Amino acid sequence: MASEFKHLVLVKFKDGVVVEDILKGMEKLVSEMDIVKSFVWGEDKESHEMLRQGFTHAFLMTFNSKEDHTAFVSHPNHVEFSASFSNAIEKAVLLDFPAVAVKPPAA
Amino acid sequence: MASEFKHLVLVKFKDGVVVEDILKGMEKLVSEMDIVKSFVWGEDKESHEMLRQGFTHAFLMTFNSKEDHTAFVSHPNHVEFSASFSNAIEKAVLLDFPAVAVKPPAA
Repeated sequence: MASEFKHLVLVKFKDGVVVEDILKGMEKLVSEMDIVKSFVWGEDKESHEMLRQGFTHAFLMTFNSKEDHTAFVSHPNHVEFSASFSNAIEKAVLLDFPAVAVKPPAA
Repeated sequence: MASEFKHLVLVKFKDGVVVEDILKGMEKLVSEMDIVKSFVWGEDKESHEMLRQGFTHAFLMTFNSKEDHTAFVSHPNHVEFSASFSNAIEKAVLLDFPAVAVKPPAA
Protein backbone atom coordinates (compact mmCIF):
# COMPACT_ATOMS: atom_id res chain seq x y z
CA MET A 1 0.00 0.00 0.00
CA ALA A 2 1.29 3.46 -0.87
CA SER A 3 2.17 5.62 2.08
CA GLU A 4 0.08 8.62 3.00
CA PHE A 5 1.88 11.93 2.70
CA LYS A 6 1.70 14.56 5.43
CA HIS A 7 2.11 18.33 5.36
CA LEU A 8 2.86 19.74 8.80
CA VAL A 9 3.09 23.42 9.68
CA LEU A 10 3.95 24.92 13.06
CA VAL A 11 3.50 28.65 13.42
CA LYS A 12 3.66 31.61 15.71
CA PHE A 13 1.31 34.35 14.55
CA LYS A 14 2.21 38.02 14.62
CA ASP A 15 0.76 40.16 17.38
CA GLY A 16 -2.63 41.57 16.44
CA VAL A 17 -3.46 38.88 13.89
CA VAL A 18 -7.05 37.61 14.12
CA VAL A 19 -6.32 33.91 14.11
CA GLU A 20 -9.98 33.02 13.62
CA ASP A 21 -9.92 34.74 10.22
CA ILE A 22 -6.86 32.75 9.19
CA LEU A 23 -8.52 29.55 10.33
CA LYS A 24 -11.65 30.32 8.37
CA GLY A 25 -9.57 30.83 5.25
CA MET A 26 -7.76 27.57 5.85
CA GLU A 27 -10.97 25.65 6.44
CA LYS A 28 -12.44 27.07 3.26
CA LEU A 29 -9.35 26.13 1.29
CA VAL A 30 -9.34 22.58 2.59
CA SER A 31 -13.07 22.05 2.23
CA GLU A 32 -12.94 23.16 -1.42
CA MET A 33 -10.15 20.76 -2.32
CA ASP A 34 -11.03 17.08 -2.31
CA ILE A 35 -7.37 16.27 -2.78
CA VAL A 36 -6.86 17.02 0.92
CA LYS A 37 -7.73 13.73 2.60
CA SER A 38 -7.82 15.02 6.16
CA PHE A 39 -7.03 18.18 8.06
CA VAL A 40 -6.49 18.54 11.78
CA TRP A 41 -5.17 21.51 13.70
CA GLY A 42 -4.65 22.55 17.28
CA GLU A 43 -3.48 25.27 19.59
CA ASP A 44 -1.06 24.56 22.41
CA LYS A 45 -2.09 26.76 25.31
CA GLU A 46 -0.29 25.04 28.13
CA SER A 47 3.15 23.69 27.28
CA HIS A 48 6.26 25.46 28.44
CA GLU A 49 7.40 28.19 26.09
CA MET A 50 10.82 26.53 26.07
CA LEU A 51 9.45 23.21 24.81
CA ARG A 52 7.30 24.74 22.08
CA GLN A 53 9.86 27.47 21.28
CA GLY A 54 7.19 30.09 20.87
CA PHE A 55 5.12 28.10 18.37
CA THR A 56 1.44 28.08 19.25
CA HIS A 57 -0.44 26.34 16.43
CA ALA A 58 0.03 23.10 14.50
CA PHE A 59 -1.67 22.34 11.19
CA LEU A 60 -1.58 18.85 9.77
CA MET A 61 -2.87 17.86 6.36
CA THR A 62 -2.89 14.34 5.00
CA PHE A 63 -2.82 13.33 1.36
CA ASN A 64 -3.17 9.97 -0.34
CA SER A 65 0.17 10.40 -2.04
CA LYS A 66 3.10 12.71 -2.49
CA GLU A 67 1.72 13.57 -5.92
CA ASP A 68 -1.53 14.81 -4.37
CA HIS A 69 0.47 16.96 -1.97
CA THR A 70 2.46 18.45 -4.84
CA ALA A 71 -0.74 19.20 -6.75
CA PHE A 72 -2.22 20.89 -3.67
CA VAL A 73 0.80 23.08 -3.02
CA SER A 74 0.93 24.33 -6.58
CA HIS A 75 -2.85 24.87 -6.88
CA PRO A 76 -3.86 28.56 -7.33
CA ASN A 77 -6.16 28.40 -4.27
CA HIS A 78 -3.25 27.33 -2.11
CA VAL A 79 -0.86 29.84 -3.63
CA GLU A 80 -3.34 32.64 -2.93
CA PHE A 81 -3.96 31.49 0.63
CA SER A 82 -0.25 31.08 1.32
CA ALA A 83 0.44 34.69 0.45
CA SER A 84 -1.94 36.01 3.12
CA PHE A 85 -0.90 33.29 5.57
CA SER A 86 2.75 34.27 5.22
CA ASN A 87 1.86 37.85 6.09
CA ALA A 88 0.22 36.74 9.33
CA ILE A 89 3.04 34.68 10.81
CA GLU A 90 6.06 35.67 12.80
CA LYS A 91 7.76 32.32 12.25
CA ALA A 92 6.98 28.85 10.95
CA VAL A 93 8.40 25.39 10.47
CA LEU A 94 7.19 23.17 7.64
CA LEU A 95 7.77 19.45 7.36
CA ASP A 96 6.54 17.27 4.50
CA PHE A 97 6.97 13.54 4.77
CA PRO A 98 5.62 10.12 3.86
CA ALA A 99 3.84 8.86 6.97
CA VAL A 100 4.95 5.69 8.68
CA ALA A 101 2.03 4.41 10.75
CA VAL A 102 3.29 2.33 13.68
CA LYS A 103 -0.19 2.36 15.16
CA PRO A 104 -2.68 3.19 12.39
CA PRO A 105 -5.22 5.91 13.26
CA ALA A 106 -8.28 3.84 12.43
CA ALA A 107 -9.15 1.12 14.97
CA MET B 1 -17.64 14.03 21.73
CA ALA B 2 -14.42 14.72 23.61
CA SER B 3 -11.57 15.97 21.49
CA GLU B 4 -8.58 13.80 20.77
CA PHE B 5 -5.34 15.07 22.20
CA LYS B 6 -2.14 15.17 20.16
CA HIS B 7 1.51 15.08 21.13
CA LEU B 8 3.76 16.38 18.37
CA VAL B 9 7.55 16.35 18.39
CA LEU B 10 9.87 17.73 15.72
CA VAL B 11 13.55 16.91 16.07
CA LYS B 12 16.96 17.22 14.59
CA PHE B 13 19.18 14.35 15.71
CA LYS B 14 22.81 14.78 16.65
CA ASP B 15 25.44 13.72 14.16
CA GLY B 16 26.34 10.06 14.54
CA VAL B 17 23.08 9.02 16.17
CA VAL B 18 21.67 5.76 14.82
CA VAL B 19 18.12 6.92 14.21
CA GLU B 20 16.90 3.36 13.59
CA ASP B 21 17.75 2.48 17.19
CA ILE B 22 15.79 5.46 18.48
CA LEU B 23 12.85 4.49 16.30
CA LYS B 24 12.92 0.92 17.59
CA GLY B 25 12.80 2.21 21.15
CA MET B 26 9.91 4.49 20.31
CA GLU B 27 7.97 1.75 18.55
CA LYS B 28 8.50 -0.54 21.52
CA LEU B 29 7.32 2.14 23.93
CA VAL B 30 4.19 2.87 21.93
CA SER B 31 3.33 -0.77 21.28
CA GLU B 32 3.55 -1.56 25.00
CA MET B 33 1.20 1.23 25.99
CA ASP B 34 -2.44 0.84 24.97
CA ILE B 35 -3.07 4.37 26.13
CA VAL B 36 -1.43 5.59 22.91
CA LYS B 37 -4.27 5.52 20.40
CA SER B 38 -2.19 6.04 17.29
CA PHE B 39 1.39 6.83 16.36
CA VAL B 40 2.67 8.12 13.04
CA TRP B 41 6.09 9.45 12.18
CA GLY B 42 8.00 10.59 9.15
CA GLU B 43 11.27 11.91 7.83
CA ASP B 44 11.42 14.95 5.59
CA LYS B 45 14.17 14.31 3.08
CA GLU B 46 13.32 16.88 0.46
CA SER B 47 12.03 20.20 1.80
CA HIS B 48 14.23 23.25 1.83
CA GLU B 49 16.40 23.51 4.91
CA MET B 50 15.02 27.02 5.40
CA LEU B 51 11.42 25.81 5.53
CA ARG B 52 12.08 22.96 7.93
CA GLN B 53 14.70 24.93 9.90
CA GLY B 54 16.96 21.94 10.23
CA PHE B 55 14.30 19.63 11.65
CA THR B 56 14.25 16.25 9.93
CA HIS B 57 11.75 14.04 11.79
CA ALA B 58 8.18 14.47 13.01
CA PHE B 59 6.54 12.20 15.59
CA LEU B 60 2.82 12.41 16.18
CA MET B 61 0.97 10.53 18.90
CA THR B 62 -2.77 10.66 19.40
CA PHE B 63 -4.62 10.04 22.66
CA ASN B 64 -8.32 9.76 23.44
CA SER B 65 -8.07 12.57 25.96
CA LYS B 66 -5.75 15.04 27.58
CA GLU B 67 -5.82 12.83 30.68
CA ASP B 68 -4.46 9.88 28.70
CA HIS B 69 -1.67 12.07 27.38
CA THR B 70 -0.78 13.19 30.90
CA ALA B 71 -0.74 9.58 32.10
CA PHE B 72 1.53 8.60 29.21
CA VAL B 73 4.02 11.41 29.78
CA SER B 74 4.38 10.60 33.46
CA HIS B 75 4.58 6.81 32.95
CA PRO B 76 7.97 5.29 33.93
CA ASN B 77 8.41 3.74 30.46
CA HIS B 78 8.08 7.16 28.87
CA VAL B 79 10.31 8.84 31.42
CA GLU B 80 13.02 6.25 30.76
CA PHE B 81 12.70 6.55 27.00
CA SER B 82 12.72 10.36 27.14
CA ALA B 83 16.07 10.39 28.92
CA SER B 84 17.82 8.51 26.11
CA PHE B 85 15.84 10.38 23.46
CA SER B 86 16.96 13.72 24.86
CA ASN B 87 20.58 12.61 24.61
CA ALA B 88 20.17 11.87 20.91
CA ILE B 89 18.72 15.16 19.75
CA GLU B 90 20.36 18.41 18.80
CA LYS B 91 17.10 20.34 18.99
CA ALA B 92 13.38 19.73 19.30
CA VAL B 93 10.01 21.43 19.34
CA LEU B 94 7.10 19.91 21.25
CA LEU B 95 3.47 20.86 20.84
CA ASP B 96 0.60 19.32 22.79
CA PHE B 97 -2.93 20.26 21.82
CA PRO B 98 -6.55 19.17 21.61
CA ALA B 99 -7.15 18.27 17.98
CA VAL B 100 -9.72 20.11 15.93
CA ALA B 101 -10.68 17.89 13.00
CA VAL B 102 -11.89 19.99 10.07
CA LYS B 103 -11.76 16.95 7.86
CA PRO B 104 -11.78 13.84 10.05
CA PRO B 105 -9.10 11.25 9.21
CA ALA B 106 -11.54 8.36 8.77
CA ALA B 107 -13.57 8.41 5.57
